[in-house]
Amino acid sequence: MAETIASPRDRFIAATETMLREAGMAAAGIKDVAVRSGAPIGSLYHYFPGGKTQLVGEALRRHATRLPLITARGFDGKRTAAAAVQAMFNAAADGFERGGADKGCAVGAVTLDLTSDDAALRTICQKAFDAWVDDVAARLPVPDPRARRSLAVTIVGAIEGSFVLARAGGNGQPFRDAGKWLSVLLAGIEGKRARRSARRRPSRTPGSSKS
Amino acid sequence: MAETIASPRDRFIAATETMLREAGMAAAGIKDVAVRSGAPIGSLYHYFPGGKTQLVGEALRRHATRLPLITARGFDGKRTAAAAVQAMFNAAADGFERGGADKGCAVGAVTLDLTSDDAALRTICQKAFDAWVDDVAARLPVPDPRARRSLAVTIVGAIEGSFVLARAGGNGQPFRDAGKWLSVLLAGIEGKRARRSARRRPSRTPGSSKS
Repeated sequence: MAETIASPRDRFIAATETMLREAGMAAAGIKDVAVRSGAPIGSLYHYFPGGKTQLVGEALRRHATRLPLITARGFDGKRTAAAAVQAMFNAAADGFERGGADKGCAVGAVTLDLTSDDAALRTICQKAFDAWVDDVAARLPVPDPRARRSLAVTIVGAIEGSFVLARAGGNGQPFRDAGKWLSVLLAGIEGKRARRSARRRPSRTPGSSKS
Repeated sequence: MAETIASPRDRFIAATETMLREAGMAAAGIKDVAVRSGAPIGSLYHYFPGGKTQLVGEALRRHATRLPLITARGFDGKRTAAAAVQAMFNAAADGFERGGADKGCAVGAVTLDLTSDDAALRTICQKAFDAWVDDVAARLPVPDPRARRSLAVTIVGAIEGSFVLARAGGNGQPFRDAGKWLSVLLAGIEGKRARRSARRRPSRTPGSSKS
């Protein structure tokens, strides 16, 4: 059986992703990436002729595929939305702490580090967030599409903001706090829907179900 | 009358603050700060013998004093908490767009850019967020101190996360979305309190108020 050894290209991308999560664009210098990856720096420009911008772009695309995993950890198809959002944020808190409490979201960190010259990278960040918002929206019990999307933006924003506060404080509690209050919000929304649909059902007197 | 001309020291700090808001630590190189400030680079090490770390620290402290102004724009002492939080986030959206949609929170951006070596700057970021959370908590209609603080963490996190999404999309809508849903949450909390306190009042029959 062949062992799966990561190619130099994959090792460069993985190292860049980790470094962006730790310290944004400031930390992801080409030389530092090469050292961290353990792959020969000589091959870096072979794989990434576009240099740092191309490398960071690939690392962001890779990180973007992981973002919906955060959603899926809570929204398992069995829980209520209120329970799911709390589970999602609790899982994010646990993952943050397990990872050493020193790694945020690569897309969020890079977004705040981009000047107006970095249009290509900003587009990658914007698309990553848009796809994640769509993924969250598809799981929410809100019939109106605009309201559903705006609630999904709020939830994704809360995750990104929790990364900021959690990094500052060095623990995952901000995720748990946000998850708790968003869960209260979603329980209210689900309760309202349940009451509405109960009113819409024709009222029945006991024993009338067979009439 | 003496004109108020900013000292070179103030100009260095103001330029650094703006550059951190635009692009985090990556952009705030000493030379670039000097160019942006218009003050002579030769005097920079005179005012900031600690170099970039000292300069960034001063810029963060300056920015930290502005954060509670975001709260105050919504919580004016007249509105309900639900209306106040929506007004706070709408004002943040307007300010973000008026400023060119390219400037976030300096404290948030730096927090995501710090490696574990930057303990001094991280402490400044943590204190800035703690003070802002205290400021928000003091305005919330939640009697239990732990719940009140955790709701304040959620609101501050939502502002920081909105900066991330707003920077990615280039407009202030994420603030307005988060403000709307946090306002729904707060209206629920205020409604529950009102119903509870109504139940606690002794019930009166009409006309009994003078008995």
